Amino acid sequence: MTIERIQPGPIMSAAVVHGDTVYLAGLIAADLDVGTKAQTEQILAKIDELLAAAGSDKSKLVKANIWLTDIGEWSLMNEAWSAWIVPGATPARATVEARLAAAKARVEIMVEAARD
Amino acid sequence: MTIERIQPGPIMSAAVVHGDTVYLAGLIAADLDVGTKAQTEQILAKIDELLAAAGSDKSKLVKANIWLTDIGEWSLMNEAWSAWIVPGATPARATVEARLAAAKARVEIMVEAARD
Amino acid sequence: MTIERIQPGPIMSAAVVHGDTVYLAGLIAADLDVGTKAQTEQILAKIDELLAAAGSDKSKLVKANIWLTDIGEWSLMNEAWSAWIVPGATPARATVEARLAAAKARVEIMVEAARD
Repeated sequence: MTIERIQPGPIMSAAVVHGDTVYLAGLIAADLDVGTKAQTEQILAKIDELLAAAGSDKSKLVKANIWLTDIGEWSLMNEAWSAWIVPGATPARATVEARLAAAKARVEIMVEAARD
Repeated sequence: MTIERIQPGPIMSAAVVHGDTVYLAGLIAADLDVGTKAQTEQILAKIDELLAAAGSDKSKLVKANIWLTDIGEWSLMNEAWSAWIVPGATPARATVEARLAAAKARVEIMVEAARD
Repeated sequence: MTIERIQPGPIMSAAVVHGDTVYLAGLIAADLDVGTKAQTEQILAKIDELLAAAGSDKSKLVKANIWLTDIGEWSLMNEAWSAWIVPGATPARATVEARLAAAKARVEIMVEAARD
């Protein structure tokens, strides 16, 4: 089975495809000067782009890990998530609180998807 | 390969099966008015149920992520884990501290398993 | 498909191989009386050993989760990571802050790799 790497950088790749599974990096928003809901929307748009580049899409998500710098903002993140996710095609998901590498990042999301 | 979703909810599915891999959501206890060991026991029972629904069982665990709100309670969680796990069939596991979305949740566990 | 477990202990296995995927446990350094960069170097050497035992190597990494007890030490961890990783073969990666089970551990790393 081949390994395909999408936007491979010196530290990490934005996405890695192995067989029928797509692994995305932990993603944060490009514009961090906005609130948690808007940051989440940016991340989800980036997930759409990367899944498309990997030959998948959000209806094929299998797993998601979400980190929030303030777990009290779970509902704000979730408003964006719920508006984006495909009904009936939700992944296994876990959300916990953690400090993130970028000081102004409020949310980071790492997903896995099928592509077949 | 088909994707099968078990208890698909509006935000997440309790479990997702893709090919020969089963992904479970991050699970917390249903009754949060008990200590860490008892919460862990509830979670592990739920894992048994979901793995059975997915055509797998705990002897086929491949990976586990565990979050504790107080890492000092590692031993309490682990008492329940050790009593439950199948000797010789332990998964790759990581346990770290994190605040969780439900205020009284002391432990959250997310596992992956094989089903073939 | 068979499940192969490497160094299966009573709580966790150091590595689990299922089909073409290798899952490593969350690893910390053996000698914790050193700084974050040196701890990371120890962990990466252990990853090399375990991947070899599983029939894989670091050029086949697909995913990495890194936890730092102080996210401000991201650059220290990353110096060791960048010196070790295979250019062009970087995994999907996420790094967040978390307290770890061993008091002096500054970094924990959990990876997945392909082995075909």
